[in-house]
Amino acid sequence: MIGNGAVGVRGTLDEFGRGQLAACTLAGLYDQVPGCWREPVNAPNPFLCRVWCDGTLVSPLSLKPRSHRQWIDLRHAVHRRETAYILPDGNEVTVEAARFLSVTDVHMGFANCRVKATRACRLTIEAGVDGAVWDLNGPHLTGFGASEGPDETLLLAAPTQEQGVPVAVALAWEEELSDGATPMNRATVVAKDGIFVRRQYSLRAEAACTVRRFVNFRFGDDASSAALAGARAARALGGEALFAASAARWAERWARSDVRIEGDDDAQLALRYSLYQLLIVAPEHTDRVSIPARGLSGQVYKGGVFWDTEMFMLPFFSHTQPEMARRLLHYRVHTLDGARRKAKEYGFRGAFYAWESQDTGDDACTLFNITDVFTGRPLRTYFRDKQVHISADVALAIWRYWKETGDDSLLREGGAEVILECARFYLSCTCYVPDRERYELRDVVGPDEYHERVDNNAFTSAMARETLAIARQTLAWLQTRQPELHEELIARLDYAGDIPRLDEVHARLHVPEPDAKTGVIEQFSGYHALEAASLAEVKARVLKANEYWGAGQGVAAHTQVIKQADTVLLLHLFPERYPAAVRRANWEFYEPRTEHGSSLSACIYALVAAGVGNTEWAYRYFLKTATIDLTGQSKQYVGTLYIGGTHPAANGGAWMAAVQGFGGLRVAAERIILEPQLPAHWRALEFRFQWHGDWFDVRVTPHEVRLAAAAGNVQQVEATIAGEHCVCAPGTVVVCGLNGGALHA
Amino acid sequence: MIGNGAVGVRGTLDEFGRGQLAACTLAGLYDQVPGCWREPVNAPNPFLCRVWCDGTLVSPLSLKPRSHRQWIDLRHAVHRRETAYILPDGNEVTVEAARFLSVTDVHMGFANCRVKATRACRLTIEAGVDGAVWDLNGPHLTGFGASEGPDETLLLAAPTQEQGVPVAVALAWEEELSDGATPMNRATVVAKDGIFVRRQYSLRAEAACTVRRFVNFRFGDDASSAALAGARAARALGGEALFAASAARWAERWARSDVRIEGDDDAQLALRYSLYQLLIVAPEHTDRVSIPARGLSGQVYKGGVFWDTEMFMLPFFSHTQPEMARRLLHYRVHTLDGARRKAKEYGFRGAFYAWESQDTGDDACTLFNITDVFTGRPLRTYFRDKQVHISADVALAIWRYWKETGDDSLLREGGAEVILECARFYLSCTCYVPDRERYELRDVVGPDEYHERVDNNAFTSAMARETLAIARQTLAWLQTRQPELHEELIARLDYAGDIPRLDEVHARLHVPEPDAKTGVIEQFSGYHALEAASLAEVKARVLKANEYWGAGQGVAAHTQVIKQADTVLLLHLFPERYPAAVRRANWEFYEPRTEHGSSLSACIYALVAAGVGNTEWAYRYFLKTATIDLTGQSKQYVGTLYIGGTHPAANGGAWMAAVQGFGGLRVAAERIILEPQLPAHWRALEFRFQWHGDWFDVRVTPHEVRLAAAAGNVQQVEATIAGEHCVCAPGTVVVCGLNGGALHA
Repeated sequence: MIGNGAVGVRGTLDEFGRGQLAACTLAGLYDQVPGCWREPVNAPNPFLCRVWCDGTLVSPLSLKPRSHRQWIDLRHAVHRRETAYILPDGNEVTVEAARFLSVTDVHMGFANCRVKATRACRLTIEAGVDGAVWDLNGPHLTGFGASEGPDETLLLAAPTQEQGVPVAVALAWEEELSDGATPMNRATVVAKDGIFVRRQYSLRAEAACTVRRFVNFRFGDDASSAALAGARAARALGGEALFAASAARWAERWARSDVRIEGDDDAQLALRYSLYQLLIVAPEHTDRVSIPARGLSGQVYKGGVFWDTEMFMLPFFSHTQPEMARRLLHYRVHTLDGARRKAKEYGFRGAFYAWESQDTGDDACTLFNITDVFTGRPLRTYFRDKQVHISADVALAIWRYWKETGDDSLLREGGAEVILECARFYLSCTCYVPDRERYELRDVVGPDEYHERVDNNAFTSAMARETLAIARQTLAWLQTRQPELHEELIARLDYAGDIPRLDEVHARLHVPEPDAKTGVIEQFSGYHALEAASLAEVKARVLKANEYWGAGQGVAAHTQVIKQADTVLLLHLFPERYPAAVRRANWEFYEPRTEHGSSLSACIYALVAAGVGNTEWAYRYFLKTATIDLTGQSKQYVGTLYIGGTHPAANGGAWMAAVQGFGGLRVAAERIILEPQLPAHWRALEFRFQWHGDWFDVRVTPHEVRLAAAAGNVQQVEATIAGEHCVCAPGTVVVCGLNGGALHA
Repeated sequence: MIGNGAVGVRGTLDEFGRGQLAACTLAGLYDQVPGCWREPVNAPNPFLCRVWCDGTLVSPLSLKPRSHRQWIDLRHAVHRRETAYILPDGNEVTVEAARFLSVTDVHMGFANCRVKATRACRLTIEAGVDGAVWDLNGPHLTGFGASEGPDETLLLAAPTQEQGVPVAVALAWEEELSDGATPMNRATVVAKDGIFVRRQYSLRAEAACTVRRFVNFRFGDDASSAALAGARAARALGGEALFAASAARWAERWARSDVRIEGDDDAQLALRYSLYQLLIVAPEHTDRVSIPARGLSGQVYKGGVFWDTEMFMLPFFSHTQPEMARRLLHYRVHTLDGARRKAKEYGFRGAFYAWESQDTGDDACTLFNITDVFTGRPLRTYFRDKQVHISADVALAIWRYWKETGDDSLLREGGAEVILECARFYLSCTCYVPDRERYELRDVVGPDEYHERVDNNAFTSAMARETLAIARQTLAWLQTRQPELHEELIARLDYAGDIPRLDEVHARLHVPEPDAKTGVIEQFSGYHALEAASLAEVKARVLKANEYWGAGQGVAAHTQVIKQADTVLLLHLFPERYPAAVRRANWEFYEPRTEHGSSLSACIYALVAAGVGNTEWAYRYFLKTATIDLTGQSKQYVGTLYIGGTHPAANGGAWMAAVQGFGGLRVAAERIILEPQLPAHWRALEFRFQWHGDWFDVRVTPHEVRLAAAAGNVQQVEATIAGEHCVCAPGTVVVCGLNGGALHA
């Protein structure tokens, strides 16, 4: 897959179409066909390119290739392929193609296709804009208008169904012929849903023919004229210049983001692939969109933005490109009204963020998300109505962004308001239990979605209480540092009455604590009373491979088997509150009970394992999260629901496991902490991060940790490395010896 | 079926055994086989009797009868049968049999069997005690001891598995031979699980042979000797005397209970059959048992006592034999500690009565009650944990018993304590919602079990609030009339702190009210937002006949289709609080949405229909409830769970529909109200009832109501008949004219 945060193009071959799931997914443009799920719009595909040789379609769909290679140049974000065929007449035809999307002008893209043949032949190359793209709940674009310009340009445009937003994709054509290649006929093919140029060439033996397309994706007002102008401008610039600009930007990105592992090439590749996946879906161009759970790899999960972004992707961005983290969080500011509407819909006050958030922040999550494989009926799930931790996830992410970056602009520009409204939501949805003299948060779904509608979920209640604490700190900060904004917010939000309630509920909200003897935190009230069936036993009860394990009656629902890290996620988020013995006890208790039915699970088990010195298990789970889209073994169906695509949260988890787990990096408002735990076979780990505007490089080996402050830094920073306190001034390096590679081996 | 409140004997034929579901179910004795459901014990069957003629088994299991009749003499509670066969040799053999259980000594039973033949033959008659009885979760009795006395007595005894309670059944044999019948061989057959006497007779043509058995059922200490002594005593008394005593008691019962309908013989029969069913299962002999949901017809529903007794059967008993009502309610006093244990188990205070109550009051209801027909897996249901209205049902029944009978002994002897503990339970399980400044009762299951875990179920919340009101009134009554008991209870229950909370929660507990425009009460929060699929649409979605409609994902669970009267039951219980227009609006709204998947539903729709003058619908639902066990169409399976048997709650509902619905009888603490609504074709309805110790006879015709006070009454009673106020002195008759048969036609 390639992408630039505005468009994602699936890694299908040039000659592929709808039947092979070709799609160019647009970020931030959603459409709903009446009666279907609302989802992102897949733009017409301007990368379509088909080749015929002497009348034979040269494609793996019709011929068995002699050889085929397909790869991504991660450094420059280019998709490449090279396929060779031997035709029945013995002619050997080779097709080489490349495509990339610009990150300097996110509307722009480029593709080329070079065809050469060992024998003389007549070649036909067809390229154009194909509106017949893959859709899950489409078609979103109907009534295509196709046009051809006098200057070898094509345009395909159509409005979306729900709101009539114009979508336009333009293509500017350029060709290059080797000696022995001669152009012949040319035809324009206008279909109901596409426009293509078809060219014939006469080739002598060993001649080659290259076709280049400069493409442009647009939606909104003037989409057609902008797309055409953009395609022409790109062609005028030329392919090399376009590539050079984009590649330069990618070099900057990698310089900030790369994590180097010495001694483990597989892990190195998987980790770089993960970072690549994050970088291609992050929005460079706007703070009105965030990263959907399946990135820009299609329409799965309705293109919804989940908590995945705040909890699993954000640390990577806030440590390596805080301006991107800021944009992602600003999306939640822009969608605050949607969260308010959702709270109101459920009879609550404040902000109840969407479980699946699209352009407006209204919840795209449906009440019936999964189909029962036994009856074919929709299953009622409670993701939308009961997974109330989402608002806390948002509030915590905003707060931590400030703590980690020192940038208070987000708080000032809406972030504080989001926090206050999220806290108000928890004031509204907790209830007081007089018998126990405490507030409780009941009838929720925690991260472990197999157990729905539980009371006192430790993670959710702790997050709600944290949100109340953050709101109190936000108010204190506003009062001291932004008194006018403080006054304005309290008045506009009518918040004065809620301020004492923040204290009251914070002081008395029940959060399950570690058991005094075992250290285990009960995931929710009554969890320990559930059947203690082993994961193997529960798996043995499965009757159909894709059956859903939750939804009230699934095989896991009334056992202790959980879908994903839940209590363990809480320990990851607040390690300072839970001693290592408690973290270890909970990891050991919950790990064998976890199915990892969510791609969000493995990285958390890696992180908590690393935090308690269990690098062997940490490494196992790190590999699992880092290779999620490389093994081809990730879950493709739940019930009859297709959930395939990329997993940016797991990719973010790979960075966290490497840097925060093995690297042991923790940044607080006042200091940097490094407590490395390298896997036994790693010779070194290197990474870079930004903290409060300053840059730092870290190199960890089994014997020492080097923390280098960039020369341009402005602060002298306090750090705790392997338990040793030190100070790192701009342009200096601190070296700290380790005892055999791990602190608590 | 026959029964006497201590034993229920299924209406199977004399020659039937385990394979034909023969069972003699003991009231109040429960047993659990390890790993199975706990359920009542079926005693060995002493009614087994088999006949051979010249070596041929004379039974419908081996021969096709020429004729067969089987009936119950409702008046005397005798089961009778007469079956004739023509054997291959042309011999016509007739078997006549009768059996009854004594209601004057509830251990005693009697059976006879008369066999005659048209041709000379050799007859073998085997009778004895058969331990091979039907069990759902048995065997409960193993290791039988069998013995034979010198005086033609048999004894079969065995201990129960769980607690080793001895169970013994004895039989004393008597025979009578006509002229031409001669005894021949005699043998005693002792099997692993039975003991039988087998006798041969030589019969001349047209001779007959009668075998009588005096049987005795016992459990507990000295069961064997008591059973043997009881069987001998009954034989000494003689069959006629035994019958006469029992029949005399039955005559008394009918004199109090009978309801006469003129102009509708089918309805008359169905109603009498219903009253018979109630009378055979009500305990004469003890206040330690109550009536299980399937009476004594077997082990279905674990022999559990449900709210059925208090809400659907009790009105019949409290109006016609208050001493029986008192015993039934005393059972709840005896099981208060079980209810306390259940409350504690769920983290609550007070008394949370068992959903399925057995001998100790601990809940026999399992968490997985039903099997999914699609997967074969157990379905989690929330009957046990969430159907919290049960405690209110008990409290209300105790309170109403006092109001209706004037007998305060029950209150003094534990009833007041039950009420206070039930109210405390609601103090404990409601929570305060600061945003709404009210208490709410959330996450419950109302009578409509298809919708589990709902908030603010109108019925449940109203019943909880009523319990709080009753507790306040109970305290006031105690303080005034039983100051010592008042003081003792408050001290022993440590109740002082809860008294102000009764007022607080009563004042602020949210109970959904009728909509200002439509008059409809929303069954629970969010009900109106559910899919408004029609009952026919929902039925059309059913894939397998026995699939359960609820359990979270069933076809009704997320639609407005409900299992049974829920909000409408609330209107039935408190008609004075809801104007007729509201009752009519709710009846009309909920009736088309009700599946009547419970046998408790029809009578309530009959009652509320009658109350708003819709006698046509009232009659339709009355017939449905009164004929439930006559049509053979009641539900036999839910999932793979067998739920067949008798339906005493529906039988109680038939009495309520006739007397309280059509007769319009309502008794308050101070007066009697009669607002009759006869079905159009009924010429008259007559019934008798007791009120505060005095007896009254009512006769309703289309033209008048006659209320006759018995001469032995002691009070001059105020009555409101068809809206007219009057006074009815002992020995007098009040006649009140009606306008065309109905007051609000």
